[in-house]
Amino acid sequence: MTESGHDGLFGALFGRGLAGPSDQDWLQAMLDTEAALARALERAGLAPAGAGAAVTAAAIAANFDAARIGRDAVLIGNPVSALVRALSAAVPPYAREAVHRGATSQDIIDTAVMLLARRGIDVIDADLRAAAEHAADLACQHAETVMAGRTLLQQAVPVTFGLVAAGWLTAIDEASRELDRVRASKLAVQFGGAAGTLAPLGDAGPAVAALLADELGLAEPVLPWHTDRERVVQLAAALTGVCAAAGLVARNVTLLAQTEVAEVAEGGGAPGQGGSSAMPHKRNPVVSVLILGCTRRAPGLLATLAAAAEQEHQRAAGAWHAEWETVSELLRLTGSASSWLLNLLSGLRVDPARMRANLDATGGLLLAEHVTAMLAPALGRLAAHDLVAVAADRAASQGRSLAEAMLADPAAAAALRDAGIGQAELAEAADPAGYLGGSAEFVRRALAAHGRVEDGA
Amino acid sequence: MTESGHDGLFGALFGRGLAGPSDQDWLQAMLDTEAALARALERAGLAPAGAGAAVTAAAIAANFDAARIGRDAVLIGNPVSALVRALSAAVPPYAREAVHRGATSQDIIDTAVMLLARRGIDVIDADLRAAAEHAADLACQHAETVMAGRTLLQQAVPVTFGLVAAGWLTAIDEASRELDRVRASKLAVQFGGAAGTLAPLGDAGPAVAALLADELGLAEPVLPWHTDRERVVQLAAALTGVCAAAGLVARNVTLLAQTEVAEVAEGGGAPGQGGSSAMPHKRNPVVSVLILGCTRRAPGLLATLAAAAEQEHQRAAGAWHAEWETVSELLRLTGSASSWLLNLLSGLRVDPARMRANLDATGGLLLAEHVTAMLAPALGRLAAHDLVAVAADRAASQGRSLAEAMLADPAAAAALRDAGIGQAELAEAADPAGYLGGSAEFVRRALAAHGRVEDGA
Amino acid sequence: MTESGHDGLFGALFGRGLAGPSDQDWLQAMLDTEAALARALERAGLAPAGAGAAVTAAAIAANFDAARIGRDAVLIGNPVSALVRALSAAVPPYAREAVHRGATSQDIIDTAVMLLARRGIDVIDADLRAAAEHAADLACQHAETVMAGRTLLQQAVPVTFGLVAAGWLTAIDEASRELDRVRASKLAVQFGGAAGTLAPLGDAGPAVAALLADELGLAEPVLPWHTDRERVVQLAAALTGVCAAAGLVARNVTLLAQTEVAEVAEGGGAPGQGGSSAMPHKRNPVVSVLILGCTRRAPGLLATLAAAAEQEHQRAAGAWHAEWETVSELLRLTGSASSWLLNLLSGLRVDPARMRANLDATGGLLLAEHVTAMLAPALGRLAAHDLVAVAADRAASQGRSLAEAMLADPAAAAALRDAGIGQAELAEAADPAGYLGGSAEFVRRALAAHGRVEDGA
Amino acid sequence: MTESGHDGLFGALFGRGLAGPSDQDWLQAMLDTEAALARALERAGLAPAGAGAAVTAAAIAANFDAARIGRDAVLIGNPVSALVRALSAAVPPYAREAVHRGATSQDIIDTAVMLLARRGIDVIDADLRAAAEHAADLACQHAETVMAGRTLLQQAVPVTFGLVAAGWLTAIDEASRELDRVRASKLAVQFGGAAGTLAPLGDAGPAVAALLADELGLAEPVLPWHTDRERVVQLAAALTGVCAAAGLVARNVTLLAQTEVAEVAEGGGAPGQGGSSAMPHKRNPVVSVLILGCTRRAPGLLATLAAAAEQEHQRAAGAWHAEWETVSELLRLTGSASSWLLNLLSGLRVDPARMRANLDATGGLLLAEHVTAMLAPALGRLAAHDLVAVAADRAASQGRSLAEAMLADPAAAAALRDAGIGQAELAEAADPAGYLGGSAEFVRRALAAHGRVEDGA
Repeated sequence: MTESGHDGLFGALFGRGLAGPSDQDWLQAMLDTEAALARALERAGLAPAGAGAAVTAAAIAANFDAARIGRDAVLIGNPVSALVRALSAAVPPYAREAVHRGATSQDIIDTAVMLLARRGIDVIDADLRAAAEHAADLACQHAETVMAGRTLLQQAVPVTFGLVAAGWLTAIDEASRELDRVRASKLAVQFGGAAGTLAPLGDAGPAVAALLADELGLAEPVLPWHTDRERVVQLAAALTGVCAAAGLVARNVTLLAQTEVAEVAEGGGAPGQGGSSAMPHKRNPVVSVLILGCTRRAPGLLATLAAAAEQEHQRAAGAWHAEWETVSELLRLTGSASSWLLNLLSGLRVDPARMRANLDATGGLLLAEHVTAMLAPALGRLAAHDLVAVAADRAASQGRSLAEAMLADPAAAAALRDAGIGQAELAEAADPAGYLGGSAEFVRRALAAHGRVEDGA
Repeated sequence: MTESGHDGLFGALFGRGLAGPSDQDWLQAMLDTEAALARALERAGLAPAGAGAAVTAAAIAANFDAARIGRDAVLIGNPVSALVRALSAAVPPYAREAVHRGATSQDIIDTAVMLLARRGIDVIDADLRAAAEHAADLACQHAETVMAGRTLLQQAVPVTFGLVAAGWLTAIDEASRELDRVRASKLAVQFGGAAGTLAPLGDAGPAVAALLADELGLAEPVLPWHTDRERVVQLAAALTGVCAAAGLVARNVTLLAQTEVAEVAEGGGAPGQGGSSAMPHKRNPVVSVLILGCTRRAPGLLATLAAAAEQEHQRAAGAWHAEWETVSELLRLTGSASSWLLNLLSGLRVDPARMRANLDATGGLLLAEHVTAMLAPALGRLAAHDLVAVAADRAASQGRSLAEAMLADPAAAAALRDAGIGQAELAEAADPAGYLGGSAEFVRRALAAHGRVEDGA
Repeated sequence: MTESGHDGLFGALFGRGLAGPSDQDWLQAMLDTEAALARALERAGLAPAGAGAAVTAAAIAANFDAARIGRDAVLIGNPVSALVRALSAAVPPYAREAVHRGATSQDIIDTAVMLLARRGIDVIDADLRAAAEHAADLACQHAETVMAGRTLLQQAVPVTFGLVAAGWLTAIDEASRELDRVRASKLAVQFGGAAGTLAPLGDAGPAVAALLADELGLAEPVLPWHTDRERVVQLAAALTGVCAAAGLVARNVTLLAQTEVAEVAEGGGAPGQGGSSAMPHKRNPVVSVLILGCTRRAPGLLATLAAAAEQEHQRAAGAWHAEWETVSELLRLTGSASSWLLNLLSGLRVDPARMRANLDATGGLLLAEHVTAMLAPALGRLAAHDLVAVAADRAASQGRSLAEAMLADPAAAAALRDAGIGQAELAEAADPAGYLGGSAEFVRRALAAHGRVEDGA
Repeated sequence: MTESGHDGLFGALFGRGLAGPSDQDWLQAMLDTEAALARALERAGLAPAGAGAAVTAAAIAANFDAARIGRDAVLIGNPVSALVRALSAAVPPYAREAVHRGATSQDIIDTAVMLLARRGIDVIDADLRAAAEHAADLACQHAETVMAGRTLLQQAVPVTFGLVAAGWLTAIDEASRELDRVRASKLAVQFGGAAGTLAPLGDAGPAVAALLADELGLAEPVLPWHTDRERVVQLAAALTGVCAAAGLVARNVTLLAQTEVAEVAEGGGAPGQGGSSAMPHKRNPVVSVLILGCTRRAPGLLATLAAAAEQEHQRAAGAWHAEWETVSELLRLTGSASSWLLNLLSGLRVDPARMRANLDATGGLLLAEHVTAMLAPALGRLAAHDLVAVAADRAASQGRSLAEAMLADPAAAAALRDAGIGQAELAEAADPAGYLGGSAEFVRRALAAHGRVEDGA
C-alpha cells in the first residue's frame, strides 16, 4: 500500500493510470460511506433532520489526519474506529448519533472497497475502450497484411496482422465486458452491523441498508456479505482477466519486436523512451515490458484473495484483513497495465514489408500444409502429410524451396503428377495471400462484435 | 492426472462426485469433437455423405488404446496426432478425409476441455442445487434458533442459526449461478486450424466452425480463441468460487463442531465415519475436513491458469500445455467438494440447546452492544461505548453479569437512572431473542432469492 | 509499494517492524551500490584516486528527488538511468567516469535488492530471536500445564501447554535458521554489465566484481545471476517460512482465545487494544489477527516470484520487473508479522485452570485411547479400539463418564475384568497428567535445540 | 493423483522420469513406515521378538487392495486406518500388537511423504546431474562461440554461447545442491501419536522415534512436526527451484530455436518428435515446450503448500489433507521436467554460423556500447552515450553501419578524431570477438564450481 501508489520511485511504472487508491482515496471512500449512512438514517427517520447533510459536510478526507488514524488502527485492527471518533468530533453534537449508527467497521471498509473498485473500474475501462479502438484500427488497416503465423514459436502458416489485431481487440473487449458485468452486478453495499443482524436498528436495518445502497449507487445484496467474499473474488478475477488481455498483447509485441523479427515497434512512448542506461543503440519495447511487469503479479494476488474467501463465523480473523491492500494492489497494477496498453496500441508501428520478408525467408516451407491439402484428395490426408514432411525436411537441409524439393523427389513428383498439380499450381500454392482461409471474415466478425461499422473493410 | 481420479487411494476423498475427467472421459471428449467435425464437414458438403456417421460410429473411447496414444503423445507434445491416426484407421476409407480435416491438435483438445467442463459443471451444479435445498431447510427450521454471533472468533452479538444457514444458502446459490453463467456463455467451440485461419477449408472455415458448434451444443466464438484464454480463466474462477462457498460452510462447521462449542455435528456420513485410527472416542468432522482438503487447492490452480493466459503468437509454447491437467484437477476437486457439501448439509445435526447455553455462558456480556444502544441517546454513542466497556471488563474479571457490574458502578448506575433504564429493562436487554434486528427478514430474503415459497416462516 | 510502507493508513498494521523498504531505502541501496562500484573501480585502478570517496560522499538518498527519478523511470523502464544522471551531476567532473562504469541498470537494482533483503532480514531475525525467547519461557513455565490436545479441532488426548509452546519455539527457531542461511549464502552482488560479460571493463570485469562484493559485504557469485533468479526465490521461500511460523502461532492463539475455549488471551498490546468499534465487551485477539492478515499474503507473492524465475536471454522482459515491488511487499509483510509475533508472545496470558476445566468437561472421554491401550494386550488393539468406541459413543450420548459407560456395558466390563482393570485403574487412567508420554522430554529437547540451559525444568 | 502418473493419456508428457509416486508407491511407503515401526518397537522391547520381521514380510504393497483401502478412507478421512486393518489381518497374531502401535495416521502419511520425497529427489537429482554434464560440455565446446546477447528480447552486446550454457550449468547445479540440502537435512521421520506426546508408549516414545528414524534412514526431528510444516514447504521450494532452472533453459531454447533466430534446435527426441498434426514442415521444440508445460505448474502448487502451513492445534482440519496429492504432483512434474531437461541438453544442436550471422545482421550496431566506452574518456560517459545514440538511430534508419553513420556525422566525426579513433579502430571495435569481457573467465569459473577439470578450455 502506498500513500499514493502512482508517485514515488516505482509509481510511474506500476501505478500509472491512477486506478489504484491512495490513502486519501481510501479515507474518502470510508467517509463517503459514513456520510451516506447518516443520510440514509435521516431518510429512515433514525437521525435528526440535517444530520445527513452535517455529516456529509464534515466527511472530507483532506480534513483528517491519515497518519494518526493509521497509528490508532492498531487498537481494533483497522482504521475505522479512529476515523469514526475523528468524524464524530467534526460534526455538530446533534448529528453525532447519525455517525456510524448500526454499523461495524467491516461495513465501512467493505463498502469503501466497493466504491474504490467502482472508481478503479471506471478508469480502467476507459483505457480499455480507447485501447480497443486502436486495436480495431489496426485490424482494419492490416486486414490484408500477410505475415507468418507462429505456433510454438515456429513459423506455421500465413495469417494477417489484421487477424492478430482482431484477436487483441476481442480479448480487450471481452475483458472490458467482464469488468462491466462485475461493476453492474457485484458491487454491493455491505451493511450488517456487528454480526449481520443490524440489531441496533431494530426492525429498520434492512430498510436502512436499502437506503444506503441508494445513496451510494451500489447494489443492495440479499444478505450482508461480511463473510461471503464471492464479490471480492469475482472482482479480482475480472481484474486478472484484464491483466491477461493486456499481457497477451504485450507478450506478442515483445516477440514481434525482437531484433530478428522486427515486424512491429513501439512508438507511443515519451521522447527517448526505450533507451538503455548502457547501450545507446537499444530500442527496447519498454511499454510492453512494463505491462508484463504489472500483469505477471495479478495471478498471485488473485490466489491470495481466493484463498481468503474461507472466512470464519460472522467476521474472519485475518483473511478479511489480508484483502484490503491486496485489492488495492490489484486495482493499481491492472490500471497501470491498461494505461500502458492504451499507450502501446496508440503508437504501435507495423512493418508489413518485414512481415512479408520473414514469411518469404523460409522459401515456401510455410505452405507445406497447403500442398498437403492439395494432395490429400488423391493420396489420403495422412499419406500426403508424410510425403510432404519428407520433402520439407529435404528442402530445409538442402536450402531449396519446398516446390523444388518435391519435384526432385520421384515419389512426390509422381504424386503431384497424378493429382494434376504442376509447377504453376505449386507456385500458386506458395503464395501466402492465397492461403488465408477465413482471416478476412474473422476480422470482419471481430469488428462487428466490437460494434464498429465498417465501410468495405 | 489420473486414469480415473475417483478411484485409487485418494479418489474417494478428493475425486468424489465424478466431475473430474478420467483418461477415458478425455479420450471420449476428443473423439466426440472429431466426430462432430466430420458431421459438420458433411453438412457443409466437404465430406462425402455418410462420413459423419461413419466417424461417429468409430469414435468410441473404449475401442482405443489410451496407453499407446499416451506414449505416442511425446512426438508432437499432445495425444491428438496419435488419436487421429488410430481413428483414421478405424473408419472406412471413404470417410478418412473427414477425420480432423481443417483442424489442428489444439482445436481438438480445447474443444474437448469445453465438453469436459460442461459435463463437470452439470455434475457439480446438481450437487450444489441439492445442497442449497438442505441449506434452505436449515434456514427455515432455525429462523428463530438463537446462537452467538462470533467475530474474530469471539462471541459478539446474538444471531440465529437460520441466518447462518441463509448465508450458506446465498453463497451456494451464487456459486451455482456463476457456474450457470459460465456454462451458458463461455463454453465455446475452438476451431481455427493451424493458426486460426482455417486455411485448408478455404472460405468455408467459419461456416464449418458454426456447424461444429451446433453439433456439439457449444457456443460459436467471434474468433478462434487459441491464444485468448479468457474462457479458461473464467471457468477456473467459477470453479474456485464454488470451492470458496463449500469451504466457507466447511470451515464454519469445523468451528461450530469443536468439542468446546458443539453446536453442530456431522451426521450424514457412512456408518463409522468420523472415527480415528487411534482414538476410539473421536467424532471428527471428517466431511468438512475433506471439503477443506479439496477447496484449499483451488486458489493455486486458479493462479496457474491465470498465469498461463499469457500465450505466444498463434499457439503457446508451454502455457497451453500447463492447462490440461490443471483444469482436470480443478474440476475433480470442485466436484469432490460439492459432493461432500451435499453430504454435509443433508445430515447436519444442530443442537439449539447448546447454542443457547453457549450464549448464556457469558452472562449477558454479549448484550453489551444492546445496552450501549439504550444509553446512547442520553450519553452519546462514544461515551456510552466507553462506559459499558469499563463495566464489561469488570464483569468479565469478577465473574458477574454485565447488569450486575453496571449497577455496582456509580457512574454507570447514574447513567442508567438518567436514561430511565431499570433492572427490568436491563433484563430485557439481556434477552438475546430481543436483539436479533433484521435476522428474520434476512432469512426470508435469502429464501425468496432462492425461489422458495415459504408458508409463514 | 510505498513511500514508506510503515506509515499511512495501513502501515501500522501491515508495515510494522520496518523490514519493508521505503522509497528512500530503495534509493539509498541503489546509491550504496553505485558508491561501492566507484570504490571498487578505484581499487582496481580503473578510476582516479579519490573518485570512490567522491561518489560515496554524493550518494546520500536525501539529496535526490525520488519523485523526479520515478517519473523519468518510464524512459528505460526502471529508475537507474535517471539516478545515474543525477548522481553524475552531483560528483566532481574527475569522478564522473567512476559512476556506473561497466554496470547496467539491472546490476544496480539487483544488488540493491540484496542490500534491502539483508537489512530486512536483520530486522526480522532480531524480532524472531526475541519472540523465540518468549516461546522458550512459555515452554519452561508450562512444561507441566496439562491441556487438551486437539486434532481436527476435536479434543483428542492430553498434552501440555509447554509442549505447544515448544512447538512454536521450534518453528520460530527453524524459520530464523533458514533466514540466516539465506543471508549468509544467497545474498550476492550482481555485476555483469549489459549482458553478463562486463565487456566495457575488458579483462578486469571479474576482479571488479570481487571488489564490489567486498565493498558491500555480499557474496561473490560464480557468475552474474541476471537471469538466474534462484537467490530471489530462496529469499522469498525463507520469508514465507517465517510467515508460516508466525501464522502457525497466530492461528492457534485465535483458536485458544475463542470465547468458549479461553485458554489464552492476548496481553501485550497497547492500552485499549482488542476493542471493537461497536461492541464494548469485545477482547479481540487483534495481534494474532493482524499477523494472519500479513502471513496470508505471503504464498501468493512467493508464487509470483517463483513464476518470474523463467527469464529470457540476458535480461527478462517483464518477469524481472515484476520482482521489485513483490520482494518489497514480502519483506514488509514478513517484518510486520514478526514484529507482531514478538508482541504477541511477550504478553500472552495463559489460563491453566481453564485448560484443566476444558479437559475435564468431557468426563474422561479424552482418555479413551489410554483405556484402549490398557485393554490391547488382552484383546488385541483393534478389538479394544472397537469396544471402547462403542462405550465412548454411549458415554457421550448418555452424559456419563467413559468409565461409567464401560462398567455398565457387559462386554466391556468383562474385558476389563479379564484384563485385571478395576475402578481404581480406570480412575488412574482418566488422570490426564498420567498420560503425557514424552511431553516433558520433547520440551527439554526443544529448549536444548534452542540453546537454552535449563535449571531443572 | 493417479494410479500411475507416468502412464495414461498425459503420463508420458508430464509424468516422465517416474519421480511422481503412484498409488502403489504410496501404499509401499506407508507399509515401509509401519514395518519400520514394528522393527523399532521390537528393538525397544515393546513388541515380541520376530514381530518386526513378520510385519516387514507382510508389508508388500502388491498384496493389498488399494481400491478397497481407498474406498474405506472416507471413514477417517485418510487411508491409514483401512491399511492398518488389512496389514494386521496379514500378520500372525503374535505380531499384531506391533502394528501401528503408538502411531496415528498422520505419522504414517507424513513419514511416507518423506520416503516418497527421498525417492523422488534421487530420481530427479540423477537427471539433473546428467543434464549438468551436458551443459558443461556445451559450455566447454562453445566458450568461444560468439552470439548476440539479448536484453528485453533485443540484441544488446555480444556474448558467447559457452557463457549461456555456463549459466544453465550454474542454475542446474544450484538447484541440485538445494535438493541435496533438503534431502540431507529436512527429510525427517514424523512420529508423535495422536497429539505429539506418544502417550501410549509411556516414557519410551522418544526412543522409539529415534529407532524408527534409524530404521528408515531419515532424520530424527527435535519434536514431532505434525503441525510444523516447514519441511514440506522447503521440499516444495527446492522442487520449484528445479523447475525454475529447467524452465529457464527451456524458455531460452524456445526463443533461440525460433524460425527467425534458429541458433539452436532440439535433437534428442524420438524419431519424428517435433512434428505437427497439421503442418508437415514443422520442427517444433517439443521437449522445451513440455518442460514449460510442467514447470509452469510449480508456483501454484508451491503456493498451495505454503498456505497450508497454517495448521490448527495438534492436527489440521483440511490444510494437512490438501498437501498429499499436491506434493505428489509437484514431485511428478519436477521429475518430468528434469527428465526432459536431460533429453533436451543431451541432444541440443547448436549453429555457430547462424549465431554469427544474426550478430552481423545489425551491422555493428551491437557494438555501440563499445564505441561509447572508447569515447568516454574524452567526452565523458553520458555525452558519449548520447552522441552514439544519435548515430545509432541514424544508422538504423538509413541502413548503414554504425561506423559509417558516425563518420558521416560532423560532431561524431570530430569526437572520434579528438579521441584518436580512426577507421581501423572503429573496425576493430566492431569485431564482437574483441568485446567479450570476462566471458571466458566466467565460463572457467562455472566449470570449476561444477567440479570439472578442464584441459585448456
